[in-house]
Amino acid sequence: MSMQACLASFTLPEDRDGRVRYGYLSDAGIVDLSVRFSHRWSSLETAVSMGALEEMMQLGERMAPDFALADACLEVPITTPEKIICVGVNYPARNEEYNDGKDAPPNPSLFPRFRRSFTGHDRPLIRPNVSTQLDYEGEIVLVIGKPGRHIPEASALEHVAALTLCNEGSVRDWLRHAKFNVTQGKNFDASGAMGPGLVPFSGEAQIADIRLETRVNGETRQSDRTGRMLFGFRRLINYISTFTTLMPGDMIVTGTPTGAGARFDPPKWLVPGDVIEVEAEGIGLLRNTVADEAAR
Amino acid sequence: MSMQACLASFTLPEDRDGRVRYGYLSDAGIVDLSVRFSHRWSSLETAVSMGALEEMMQLGERMAPDFALADACLEVPITTPEKIICVGVNYPARNEEYNDGKDAPPNPSLFPRFRRSFTGHDRPLIRPNVSTQLDYEGEIVLVIGKPGRHIPEASALEHVAALTLCNEGSVRDWLRHAKFNVTQGKNFDASGAMGPGLVPFSGEAQIADIRLETRVNGETRQSDRTGRMLFGFRRLINYISTFTTLMPGDMIVTGTPTGAGARFDPPKWLVPGDVIEVEAEGIGLLRNTVADEAAR
Repeated sequence: MSMQACLASFTLPEDRDGRVRYGYLSDAGIVDLSVRFSHRWSSLETAVSMGALEEMMQLGERMAPDFALADACLEVPITTPEKIICVGVNYPARNEEYNDGKDAPPNPSLFPRFRRSFTGHDRPLIRPNVSTQLDYEGEIVLVIGKPGRHIPEASALEHVAALTLCNEGSVRDWLRHAKFNVTQGKNFDASGAMGPGLVPFSGEAQIADIRLETRVNGETRQSDRTGRMLFGFRRLINYISTFTTLMPGDMIVTGTPTGAGARFDPPKWLVPGDVIEVEAEGIGLLRNTVADEAAR
Repeated sequence: MSMQACLASFTLPEDRDGRVRYGYLSDAGIVDLSVRFSHRWSSLETAVSMGALEEMMQLGERMAPDFALADACLEVPITTPEKIICVGVNYPARNEEYNDGKDAPPNPSLFPRFRRSFTGHDRPLIRPNVSTQLDYEGEIVLVIGKPGRHIPEASALEHVAALTLCNEGSVRDWLRHAKFNVTQGKNFDASGAMGPGLVPFSGEAQIADIRLETRVNGETRQSDRTGRMLFGFRRLINYISTFTTLMPGDMIVTGTPTGAGARFDPPKWLVPGDVIEVEAEGIGLLRNTVADEAAR
C-alpha cells in the first residue's frame, strides 16, 4: 500500500534549539522544503495561513528526496497551533456507550487539548506511570486556513486548509477524576498523536463520506464513515466559531467512531508493544507504538 | 487607594504588527522597559522564564514614567502562554451551589481557556450576541516560572514566578450546552480578563491566606480567603503536573469564591455599563467594564 503524499513537520538528529523543518513526504522519502523555501514560508503554519499548501505539494512532487523517512523524526504537523479543539460523542452508538440514560445532546461536546499531549507519526504514545488505562481514538482533523468568527455553514469549508489524522489517546480513569470536564485524561504528555502530515483540502467530496478506521496490532477496532457523523464538518466550524475566532493553524479533531478499548469487557487497554494505526481514505495512515513513561 | 506596582504588557495607539511592549506600572504611570531592555528580554514571557521579574521591578521603580496609564492599552500580561488551566469548584459552598447531590470531588475540576477568551485591565468584557448570561468570577492566577513534571507539593511554589488577577468571565447558558465539558461557555472571545500585570512571587506568605473579593458597581458579590481553598496552591501544581509538563508562562487560574451572578434569584447577569472589580491583597485590582459584541 502506498503512502499518502503530504506535507510534514520534522526534525533531524543534528537539529538543535527547537528548529523544526518541513517537507514533502511520500513513499520515496522526504524532500526538505524548509531548506529551500524558508524565505517564503518559515513553517507549515505560515504556509497554511498563506494558502500555499497546493503549491508546496507541486514543488515537492518534482524534487528528489533528500533523505529516507527513517532518518527523520516526525512532529505534529502544526507545531504551535493557537487552539486544538476536540469533539466528543460524534459517531453513532457513541452516546449509548456512556450508559447514562441521557439523550443525544443538541450540541457537540467540546474539549481542548494542549499541543504537548500529542506526538508525531511513528513515535510511541506514552503510557503514564499513574494509570494502565491508555486508550486509542482514531479521528480526522480539520486544519483551519482562514480566520473567522460566526462562520455560516454554507461557507464553512472555505476556512479549511488541510486535513490530517489523530490518535486522540486518552487515559480513561483520569477522564472522570473530578466533578466534570475530561481535561486531565485528555492531556497527558504525548498520550496522543497527530500526522503523518498535512493533506491539502480540495473540497467537500474529499471528506463527505470516507471511511475512518483504527486497528490495533492489525485487528480492526473502530470503523465508520464520516457521512454518519452526528455533527458534520460544516456544523462544527459554524458552532465553534460562534464563541471563538478560528485562526490559521487551529485544529478541530472531529470525533471517533465506536469501539475504543474501554468498550470491551474486559477493556482492552494499550500496552507497550502495541501498534495502533489510524487510517482514513485519502488522508493517510497514522501509526504509533506505545512506551511506558520513563521511571522517575 | 494606591495601585499595586506590577509589570504589565501593553500597546500604544501607534503600535502596529502585533508589537506588544512591557513596562513597570504604578500610580505614577508606565515606565516602558521594553524600549530599554529588549536586548535582554524580548517579552514578559522571556523575563518570567529567566527569573528576571524582581530585577525588572527594581529597574522600573527608579525610572520616571514615560506615559500615563490612560495612554496605553493593557494586554493580558503573558501574551502567548502555552497553557491556561482553570480550576473549578475550589472555595467552600461552591460544590453545594451545583445542587446536583454529588459530594465534593476528590480532585480539582480543571478546564482550559484559550488566550483569546481574555482581555486586559480597564477594557470591556464582551457580552456575546448569542447570550445574556455573562457572569463574573474573580480569581487569583499563578504564573509558572520554572518547568516541571511530577512536581512534589513540598517544592511546588519554587515553580511560581508571579501572580496576577483574573475575571474568569463565563457565559452561563453555554457552559452546559453539550453532554459534558464547560468549554464553550468558558471560551467566548474577550469574555474574561487578566491583569493588570505581574506581581513577582516572593514566597508562600504572599498568598497563603489573603482576601479575594469581587465587586460589581461597588457592591461586594464575592469575598473569601485563599486559606479556605479546597485544593491549595501547592496541591494544584502537584496535581496538574502529574499529567502535563508545566512551562514558563503557563497560567493556573485557581478558582472563584461563592457569589457569582448565577447564584442570585433572579440571577444578576452583567450588562453594558457595569463595572467589575476583582481585588486581592498584595496582588492588585483588576477592573473591567462590559460592552456588547459588535453587531454583524
